[in-house]
Amino acid sequence: MVHMETWDLIIIGAGAAGLAAGIYGSRSGLKTLILDEKLAGGTTADAPIVENYPGFPFVTGAELADKKVSHAKKTGATIHELETVVSLDLKGEKKIVKTSRAEYEAPAIIIASGAHYREAEVKGEKEFRGRGVSYCGVCDGPFFKGKRVLVIGGGNSACITTLYLSGLAAAVFVVHRRDAFRAENALVKDLESKGNVKVMWNTEVKEIKGDKVVTTAVVSDYQTGAIQELAIDGVFVQIGESPNSQVAKESGVEVEDGGCIKIDIRQHTNIPGVFAAGDVTNYPVRQIGTAVGQGITAALEAYAYIKRPYYRK
Amino acid sequence: MVHMETWDLIIIGAGAAGLAAGIYGSRSGLKTLILDEKLAGGTTADAPIVENYPGFPFVTGAELADKKVSHAKKTGATIHELETVVSLDLKGEKKIVKTSRAEYEAPAIIIASGAHYREAEVKGEKEFRGRGVSYCGVCDGPFFKGKRVLVIGGGNSACITTLYLSGLAAAVFVVHRRDAFRAENALVKDLESKGNVKVMWNTEVKEIKGDKVVTTAVVSDYQTGAIQELAIDGVFVQIGESPNSQVAKESGVEVEDGGCIKIDIRQHTNIPGVFAAGDVTNYPVRQIGTAVGQGITAALEAYAYIKRPYYRK
Repeated sequence: MVHMETWDLIIIGAGAAGLAAGIYGSRSGLKTLILDEKLAGGTTADAPIVENYPGFPFVTGAELADKKVSHAKKTGATIHELETVVSLDLKGEKKIVKTSRAEYEAPAIIIASGAHYREAEVKGEKEFRGRGVSYCGVCDGPFFKGKRVLVIGGGNSACITTLYLSGLAAAVFVVHRRDAFRAENALVKDLESKGNVKVMWNTEVKEIKGDKVVTTAVVSDYQTGAIQELAIDGVFVQIGESPNSQVAKESGVEVEDGGCIKIDIRQHTNIPGVFAAGDVTNYPVRQIGTAVGQGITAALEAYAYIKRPYYRK
Repeated sequence: MVHMETWDLIIIGAGAAGLAAGIYGSRSGLKTLILDEKLAGGTTADAPIVENYPGFPFVTGAELADKKVSHAKKTGATIHELETVVSLDLKGEKKIVKTSRAEYEAPAIIIASGAHYREAEVKGEKEFRGRGVSYCGVCDGPFFKGKRVLVIGGGNSACITTLYLSGLAAAVFVVHRRDAFRAENALVKDLESKGNVKVMWNTEVKEIKGDKVVTTAVVSDYQTGAIQELAIDGVFVQIGESPNSQVAKESGVEVEDGGCIKIDIRQHTNIPGVFAAGDVTNYPVRQIGTAVGQGITAALEAYAYIKRPYYRK
């Protein structure tokens, strides 16, 4: 029989949201466990440079992630790394979390399991990730001021990223497999009006090449078969993102189409005692600083829920 | 005639929310002006120590505020200090901001003017502010683990703070002018059940005394006239907070009873192109990290509004 450990608060995910929740949970006096299937730090740790978390004008993602992990530990939170949540039982007063190693229970849990970007599965993409290959325009666009960038994709997020980059970069190439965008018309019209955007219909990127950083994209044309090498400084892969919400969904947590967990302004899900924060939710912005804010609110609401449900209505 | 300066984005308030908004506004390529009637930094700068802004396990409020001010400047935001907003005209497409020095216009503004705590107006209160006198239980409670603290007030926030502190401090004294609380019954019942809470009815604090930090509260009893000196380590003044929303309210921004600006989950107010973030809003949590998250969202929503209102619905 598996030993059942009891905690006050269990947080799934040790990224920006989960660590912020851990800091506030522990400081409130809750015995707090943070679980992560990878190493602690979240996607922050993957960012080569972070320039937009207020207070750190210039820091590597790894360093910022490390600081937050240490911070959470210093407040007394326990972090288990490389431990995967396999199922949740959220029906009772005690929420039960089964992992690859053990079973835990707590009166409240916070789901902060993040999201993963869909990859284009192009040669060179993994190699140059963080060295010219990015998945987030708002995060990394400003590193490409006056430079030449390429966007892979043709949906709303590809178009929005292209428009955003067109205000910063010297030139933006859009590589799209089809002959039309799957995006809002007004968005497409606006994109067409930009002098520094070139859409390459019916094309795909075959390879991303470079030296220390990206220098070239090899683009093939479906119709003509022509291959060209484009000199570029950055590639933004914009073909979607998937929240890591499968286990939560299976245990009754309500999600939107696409899998994002539905939250209210106080980070409550549809299940009492179950909160969610960060990229796994349907909050409209996905930044380190907004994940931190959500994690803090989730922890304070969880605290109120555990101690006295009537603290906050 | 006053010269009218044109900006892309004007942010009122250079605290945690306003500076985060400034960083994101500038990085998005918006010509961004931040106005503050005091020095930049906001109430963060008043905190002796901050232990709960993720990434900084231990930092003085002044140092953290300075880092954020430098960060905002480095991204290109312009900050005007000691410049008071006297009126707003928000009716047209161009929002007009009149200050003690000049007039500015921009297609979007973010109100991040914060709030101020009501003071008890007790001798020693100002002198020991930040050295034992606090206005925020969640912020400063953990500094008083195992110590003796005193709460001034008798409403919901005084009771919630008392309950919160009872889980950390060795003893909590509540000094209240009346013979009953103006708080929810369930909250009062819970408070009465705490063994380490002592409510002192019909009393008031006459003076807060100390050396480097608070050591003593002089408490007088209205009914008996008795004066006693209580040995305590901290005083939490919990008699309310007022948002700095008067000018916004006068220009048509919708506020709740109590003056907090009503926002939705994307930081929009009732007026298109007018956003709000931080302690001036009715967001349920008032922490540095949540103000940062709100400021980021406000700036990205303002950007979307300025560039293309249909980016986000």
